[in-house]
Amino acid sequence: MIEIKKIKGGVCAARGFFAGASGCGIKTGSVTRDDVAVVFSEAPSFSAATFTTNKVKAAPIRVSAEHLKTGRQRAVILNSGNANACTGEAGIQDARAMCDAAGSLLGLKSKEVLVCSTGRIGVPLPMDRIAKGIALLKPNRTGSLASATAIMTSDTFAKEFAVEVKTGKGSFRVGGIAKGAGMIDPNMATMLCVVTTDADLSQPVLRAELKRSVANSFNRITIDGDMSTNDTVILLSNGLSACTPDMSAFGQALDEVTRTLARMIVSDGEGVSRFVEVELIGAANDKEARTAAEAIANSTLVKCAWAGGDPNWGRILDAVGYCGVKIDDAKVDIFYDKLASVKNGIASHTPFEKLRAVAAKKSFKVTVDLKLGKGSYYVWTTDLTEEYVRLNLGE
Amino acid sequence: MIEIKKIKGGVCAARGFFAGASGCGIKTGSVTRDDVAVVFSEAPSFSAATFTTNKVKAAPIRVSAEHLKTGRQRAVILNSGNANACTGEAGIQDARAMCDAAGSLLGLKSKEVLVCSTGRIGVPLPMDRIAKGIALLKPNRTGSLASATAIMTSDTFAKEFAVEVKTGKGSFRVGGIAKGAGMIDPNMATMLCVVTTDADLSQPVLRAELKRSVANSFNRITIDGDMSTNDTVILLSNGLSACTPDMSAFGQALDEVTRTLARMIVSDGEGVSRFVEVELIGAANDKEARTAAEAIANSTLVKCAWAGGDPNWGRILDAVGYCGVKIDDAKVDIFYDKLASVKNGIASHTPFEKLRAVAAKKSFKVTVDLKLGKGSYYVWTTDLTEEYVRLNLGE
Repeated sequence: MIEIKKIKGGVCAARGFFAGASGCGIKTGSVTRDDVAVVFSEAPSFSAATFTTNKVKAAPIRVSAEHLKTGRQRAVILNSGNANACTGEAGIQDARAMCDAAGSLLGLKSKEVLVCSTGRIGVPLPMDRIAKGIALLKPNRTGSLASATAIMTSDTFAKEFAVEVKTGKGSFRVGGIAKGAGMIDPNMATMLCVVTTDADLSQPVLRAELKRSVANSFNRITIDGDMSTNDTVILLSNGLSACTPDMSAFGQALDEVTRTLARMIVSDGEGVSRFVEVELIGAANDKEARTAAEAIANSTLVKCAWAGGDPNWGRILDAVGYCGVKIDDAKVDIFYDKLASVKNGIASHTPFEKLRAVAAKKSFKVTVDLKLGKGSYYVWTTDLTEEYVRLNLGE
Repeated sequence: MIEIKKIKGGVCAARGFFAGASGCGIKTGSVTRDDVAVVFSEAPSFSAATFTTNKVKAAPIRVSAEHLKTGRQRAVILNSGNANACTGEAGIQDARAMCDAAGSLLGLKSKEVLVCSTGRIGVPLPMDRIAKGIALLKPNRTGSLASATAIMTSDTFAKEFAVEVKTGKGSFRVGGIAKGAGMIDPNMATMLCVVTTDADLSQPVLRAELKRSVANSFNRITIDGDMSTNDTVILLSNGLSACTPDMSAFGQALDEVTRTLARMIVSDGEGVSRFVEVELIGAANDKEARTAAEAIANSTLVKCAWAGGDPNWGRILDAVGYCGVKIDDAKVDIFYDKLASVKNGIASHTPFEKLRAVAAKKSFKVTVDLKLGKGSYYVWTTDLTEEYVRLNLGE
């Protein structure tokens, strides 16, 4: 029996973690906002991370992956305004230089630091300015919100969340900051997340739990189907709670943090007016369920219908039809929340007005039952609005 | 040596083909436009067709596929306003009834007729009205434009095209009508095309040439990545020219018609402001080239950038990165028309203003060279505008 309670403090909620932010004008040259952030553990810690599956990987991801081989990182240095992606060998050197500078500031080796960047791609990092920005950082126990704010790009609010967990074996904390999957002018932006915990865990447990939890949180979200070159989720654990929880207790707490941050990211997608959970059940297997759920969630036409408050099912059935999974359309049921929209492949008798009332809500669930097997999967997604297009017209 | 000349007459340009249209108020009950059309050969003809690969297939496709087994159809009956899709067993009966009615009108067996529908899905066809509409049809030698107009949904112009071909073995004609891939409120619409020829060809040649030509025309277009349940391309050949051209001569003429109609469809996509050819070269093989070209063409972010006249390359590289094909991003070159935008994975020295001038054009070409192999593919696509979203908000 465990008790999970939401607490304040974000990425600094866990004992011994410090965060801070500073501004150095990365994007424009003039300092109008904080654009550098750091998260730091005062005690030695274990680390784990998951990175984008995009085959084009930004320089900070390559450098972080290299450092991560030891699994003993104690700090993360982050910047917004420039993704340091598609920047060639010079970009790799710049990412290393960021770790060097953060290491100097914190009294760590360069290899004890992980690095994340988000923002414009294809533009060299202004390393002189960034070095000054890093030197200005003063990590502290109340710096979570400032660091969450510094890494924002097109996000409209800073994202932080933390929980305290009481178990029979003592208590521990898990908290984090994140930035959104919304896309940034003039190039795509990135999903970044740093989670910290004072639970006392081994590195293999940390790695396994992060992988599992990301599969159930950040990997469930899709806003436009485009994946960034920089997506990164990092987990640091310093053991300062002296509590070694059961894996399931830690997993529950970690899920609470990752899933909450993931939902915040979806809700804050660019121009989003609706949060939609797409649940696919009855597929031949889980893999096909995922393919179909993602096809629905990424269908431009389905998303446009939702933006208009239209409880459209034809476009949903169409998406399942073209995504390649096994389907017998004479069997398919589709629900908006709990109201049947389609039964056995044809329109249900539910009055259209009732279905429309569901699609008019800010948040609803679409369930598609293929009635072929036991495969299931769900994703969290959004509508596609004119505002989204406007925000992504580029420069 | 052959000579291909554009001529008038559309789907009636070839000898012995008749077309006509009538209005019966399919969508709303009141007759405000023509919504039924027919194409008919006065002489026996061979037929071939290609249908949507969507696993959810509308009733008219199922009935047409069944009739097509003989390859001896002489007429096509078409309607707009209702797709007769997701309508269950009753829909199959309705599609058969449309063939029956057209057969009665033209003195043909029901099985000598193919049927196409486009429009709303999930709504039963108003068969009483459609039967009246079919009875009113008066196919004639100048009915191409009227029939092309009757099958329009969200199309902004009627699409017809024809050519006359002179060869050492005599002359023949090929012509057709089509309707667009733009999507229709409240559900997805359909790409329909009927091509006729008076060339004297065997049924196997007809079938092979149609398949080849569709692969190089209609299968190259993508507007939003969504595929309809009703997509159909039909080819009828009645041999009345008494000319049996070489396969390559017929193929060239057929391509001229299918590729012109396909480009018309793309240009008339909903809310489209730019026509873009995406060419992928240097891929490991043709299949990977196709995957990457389609990923670029279907990327919401890439398309939004084009709508804004932004010669964005980061989003293009990102799309190639996540679509799963082999890539070494340090090798990639990207061009807007002939201007290098990216060389070896990093920004070229081409002044941004010059690239922007290309992306500002109504029509341009993006070439991506992966420099890994000899695989190549191209697709024709469009930008994604606020207008597109507005048109697809549903009801």
